[in-house]
Amino acid sequence: MTKLRLALFGAGRIGKIHAATIDANPDCELVSVVDIDESAAKEVANRYSSKVMTADEVFDDKNIEAVLICSAANTHADLIEKAARANKVIFCEKPIDLSLKRVQACLKVVEENSASLSLGFNRRYDNNFMAIKTALDEGEIGKAELITISSRDPGLPPMDYMKLSGGIFKDMMIHDFDMAVWLKGEMPVRLSAHASAIVEPSISEFGDFDTAVVSMEFADASLAVITNSRRASYGYDQRIEVHGEKGMLSMENVLENTVSISNEYGTNKAKPLHFFLERYMQAYANELNDFVSCFADGKKPKASGKDGENALILALAAEKSIKTGKIIDIKN
Amino acid sequence: MTKLRLALFGAGRIGKIHAATIDANPDCELVSVVDIDESAAKEVANRYSSKVMTADEVFDDKNIEAVLICSAANTHADLIEKAARANKVIFCEKPIDLSLKRVQACLKVVEENSASLSLGFNRRYDNNFMAIKTALDEGEIGKAELITISSRDPGLPPMDYMKLSGGIFKDMMIHDFDMAVWLKGEMPVRLSAHASAIVEPSISEFGDFDTAVVSMEFADASLAVITNSRRASYGYDQRIEVHGEKGMLSMENVLENTVSISNEYGTNKAKPLHFFLERYMQAYANELNDFVSCFADGKKPKASGKDGENALILALAAEKSIKTGKIIDIKN
Amino acid sequence: MTKLRLALFGAGRIGKIHAATIDANPDCELVSVVDIDESAAKEVANRYSSKVMTADEVFDDKNIEAVLICSAANTHADLIEKAARANKVIFCEKPIDLSLKRVQACLKVVEENSASLSLGFNRRYDNNFMAIKTALDEGEIGKAELITISSRDPGLPPMDYMKLSGGIFKDMMIHDFDMAVWLKGEMPVRLSAHASAIVEPSISEFGDFDTAVVSMEFADASLAVITNSRRASYGYDQRIEVHGEKGMLSMENVLENTVSISNEYGTNKAKPLHFFLERYMQAYANELNDFVSCFADGKKPKASGKDGENALILALAAEKSIKTGKIIDIKN
Amino acid sequence: MTKLRLALFGAGRIGKIHAATIDANPDCELVSVVDIDESAAKEVANRYSSKVMTADEVFDDKNIEAVLICSAANTHADLIEKAARANKVIFCEKPIDLSLKRVQACLKVVEENSASLSLGFNRRYDNNFMAIKTALDEGEIGKAELITISSRDPGLPPMDYMKLSGGIFKDMMIHDFDMAVWLKGEMPVRLSAHASAIVEPSISEFGDFDTAVVSMEFADASLAVITNSRRASYGYDQRIEVHGEKGMLSMENVLENTVSISNEYGTNKAKPLHFFLERYMQAYANELNDFVSCFADGKKPKASGKDGENALILALAAEKSIKTGKIIDIKN
Repeated sequence: MTKLRLALFGAGRIGKIHAATIDANPDCELVSVVDIDESAAKEVANRYSSKVMTADEVFDDKNIEAVLICSAANTHADLIEKAARANKVIFCEKPIDLSLKRVQACLKVVEENSASLSLGFNRRYDNNFMAIKTALDEGEIGKAELITISSRDPGLPPMDYMKLSGGIFKDMMIHDFDMAVWLKGEMPVRLSAHASAIVEPSISEFGDFDTAVVSMEFADASLAVITNSRRASYGYDQRIEVHGEKGMLSMENVLENTVSISNEYGTNKAKPLHFFLERYMQAYANELNDFVSCFADGKKPKASGKDGENALILALAAEKSIKTGKIIDIKN
Repeated sequence: MTKLRLALFGAGRIGKIHAATIDANPDCELVSVVDIDESAAKEVANRYSSKVMTADEVFDDKNIEAVLICSAANTHADLIEKAARANKVIFCEKPIDLSLKRVQACLKVVEENSASLSLGFNRRYDNNFMAIKTALDEGEIGKAELITISSRDPGLPPMDYMKLSGGIFKDMMIHDFDMAVWLKGEMPVRLSAHASAIVEPSISEFGDFDTAVVSMEFADASLAVITNSRRASYGYDQRIEVHGEKGMLSMENVLENTVSISNEYGTNKAKPLHFFLERYMQAYANELNDFVSCFADGKKPKASGKDGENALILALAAEKSIKTGKIIDIKN
Repeated sequence: MTKLRLALFGAGRIGKIHAATIDANPDCELVSVVDIDESAAKEVANRYSSKVMTADEVFDDKNIEAVLICSAANTHADLIEKAARANKVIFCEKPIDLSLKRVQACLKVVEENSASLSLGFNRRYDNNFMAIKTALDEGEIGKAELITISSRDPGLPPMDYMKLSGGIFKDMMIHDFDMAVWLKGEMPVRLSAHASAIVEPSISEFGDFDTAVVSMEFADASLAVITNSRRASYGYDQRIEVHGEKGMLSMENVLENTVSISNEYGTNKAKPLHFFLERYMQAYANELNDFVSCFADGKKPKASGKDGENALILALAAEKSIKTGKIIDIKN
Repeated sequence: MTKLRLALFGAGRIGKIHAATIDANPDCELVSVVDIDESAAKEVANRYSSKVMTADEVFDDKNIEAVLICSAANTHADLIEKAARANKVIFCEKPIDLSLKRVQACLKVVEENSASLSLGFNRRYDNNFMAIKTALDEGEIGKAELITISSRDPGLPPMDYMKLSGGIFKDMMIHDFDMAVWLKGEMPVRLSAHASAIVEPSISEFGDFDTAVVSMEFADASLAVITNSRRASYGYDQRIEVHGEKGMLSMENVLENTVSISNEYGTNKAKPLHFFLERYMQAYANELNDFVSCFADGKKPKASGKDGENALILALAAEKSIKTGKIIDIKN
């Protein structure tokens, strides 16, 4: 078997993680690295014995079969389109774009070129989320009737990041919207949202929130609730509960270790793994390895461009609910 | 010290529980029992060496200082008014009435007669709910920002009961509305609701639901979510989570026992205590003992008529949100 | 049905608990109270409308069918013998006596008079221990192969108590020996012991220990380990683990409440219920109610005089192991 | 910085794991692979672009600085001695040898050649065991008074393996002896053992056991208990509890995932990770990476030859306790 030959766009934090996974996977090879910061590109390229290239060189190189788009969010849609036209298999970190129109235009190009686009909804590749999905699909609790998704970050991102992030619904809850749709296997039909800037009131100046609740109804009469907070004193909190007709599935956090201490104050367990890099380290590796094996087997990716569009539609509906004070219908 | 002399209205299930508590409390005495079913009244009266009386006899008896109203829900408001006018100290099971107007009229009578009315929101007397309230009030997590309340019954009540219950919001979620207001110490300012008849679709014929989600906003920008289901395969589920600026409080279910079994399927813990009688047995005793000691000490009850009115206001707002598809403002 | 008429010997802490249980049980009646401290006897007698009597008056009173022996430990054997001769049904707190000879002589009198003696091994009546015993007897884990019993007290008892207690094996581990024999349904065949005065070295002056480990072998080749400490900073610790061929049963502590707090230090759960009075409150009630219903049904008590003798045999063997540095054979 | 150049002896299961770690560590390089099964050696060598060599070639090659001994147990002592004489830095899987005399002779050679020998007590490198050790060393529970170590394998090893294994104490409990000594920082002074062949009685034909309990006393009066079973229906069970003067540390198993299911049977959590390869995957990587960084920094390894000797001394004492029926003194 020949190895899948890949180019990496973006030599930042997440790009480096993916480069290490590629290096450890005997079925693929990191051929080149692209980054507007050339020294960053060089560092990764040197570490894994690959070349620094420009974007155009990658698209023109027939020997490169796949691209990993891990560059800044506002470059994603353009790179996806160019990659699709250049016949590359595409993995892209979320989001495709913050504008629904831009996303839809981009996905049209993908479709017209019959390109394969895998989107970086990393949680779908985490063994805990997968265990809950598998149990649900295998009917262990019968029909899902009430889904509760909790996501809380250990702390507010830097103000500069927040201003460009698109807001809590498009930047943070987007993962939870995707999770709800993935678990149910369909889009909700109605949704309402409540949100506050209670952790950091100043962010309301640019219209953002740090604490939010969204409730959703599905066509089969089941309900789902997502709660988000940008700051949890106890660390990264990622839990799911699915209440079904025959049982409840519940996914707890992954803790730093399994040691507890008991004393006159009670019994104290360790904190959750600090943040997404620690918590989803294995999921990131699974995600890339799955991308490589999907290519080999001709399978569809677990998370597609359409999944990215769906999550964005829900984020926008949540924003609309808050603006209008109404429960919003989702057109599917 | 003389003993508080009480009359019990209603010799049914909950009336019997309260009678046993009175019997075991050396500071009070069950003087008489009233029930339209005379044999039920006799059974309880005999067991505790008290007399069977009519309602009028109780109200006329100057030696009876307090009444426990545990009769059918539609008799509560009338009995409260008569007791208030007869100068009795009053304990009444929830609800006062399902009509807000009737509740308000009744509470006016209570007020005009300067009567003391304690309402049976039993969860306020449970040591677990009290522990979460105490921790919150003592500032252990700072300001509460996001409250999540889960209540699920082990199974649907009989259809006859449901038809007269007033619906899921006024019959079941009423406890959770009270819990949210109690924890926050204030009423919310806005609310939205979603509900389904997914467990038993036929109940939609009389406009009821079995699964519901309500989200609320408070004046201080904090949020709360309540989820309800009339049927949980694993039993009675009563949990609370309060996310605050300095930590999260989390209240788990009380289990049948502390034994688990580990085998090739994993590790299995016992179910929660089956239903409210098992789960809140000690809370019911605390509630009555508190009623007796409030009388002795001249203290206000933990749950008042106003608390009953507040919870009803929220239940009605939830119904309105569903009917209108809007987020509803609560006038306080 | 007529009520079982009881006399109580000993109006101390545990005697009061049993008196309250009798009062709440409609099938029995506390006729009289005996205590060398007359005011203590009076207090209990008044509270439950019974009489103060002398021991002899009790034994002579044909209307008294049963006695509860809750007086000082060194009076137990004498009172049991007198009660047996006077044809009373007997409940006695542990121990019968600290001397094996005295116990055996006493049990001979019980046997000769065909008396029924129920011994106060309260843990056998706790719903958690019962759940583990039931699961074991129903074969949920197949044959028990390795039993681990942990018992730790929140703190050392007063020095005066310890000096008269008979030492850690006869005073504290006696409950755990009984538990092991009860769970297995048979006595072990060999045993070794290790013990230290590490918490309070001064108790070694009178030959006592505060920390101890005993290992036992049963005829069926299964093993058991008991660990004891007189001081656990986190409170009363009472756990059992039974490893069997098809699974493991594990009994955790009962906590003060189900609330946990998560913050930057991790997640903290409540402490175990403080000590035996809190932890075994319901077990004490079950024990007495079982005694009353065994009388009514003619059933054997769950814990007999022979069980007391067996536990004492093991405690003495543990002491011998320490003195001799040898593994001790138990003659059965 | 130049890379540490290593040779691997033994291309079996554990050898492959270490080879992958070396490959992923940028500070070292796998130069050669030695195995009596040449095709196994070739497979590993090819995968990581290294050479197949004979043992003598490795010892003669001045460019090879370090050796990893992962070959059959009975080759360890010889290879250690040759490596020590050839001036290599040595990592060796446990055991050095099953004979104490052979171990001591081997360690003398190591000492005479001032060689650095790191022993594969992998648990010392697991983040959970490390967390308990760190908490203990930092005084979080004060003095350790009672240590309980539970180790249970998911199932009996093949009969052929067992016959050559040296028996449960030298093959399995050896890890737990090391753990006790590591946690306490010293050897115990006395020990007693009980053991049975209850899971598979036929192994008593060659004098082995499958279930065992060892109790130990330390010079500071603290106690420790180890329990072992060769078969746990629920999987690999590795727990530790350290009871100290100011608290208790408790290390639970690592589970397959954090998902639980609640239904009419209770709440079921996932099983522990299946066996040592799954459970200690990260510990094996930490171990090798620590070996490499100890070389670079000139630090002593976390587990030395002396640690191997100590654990073997305790295993032999346990065997002696069983043979003699006595509590055995350990000469330190």
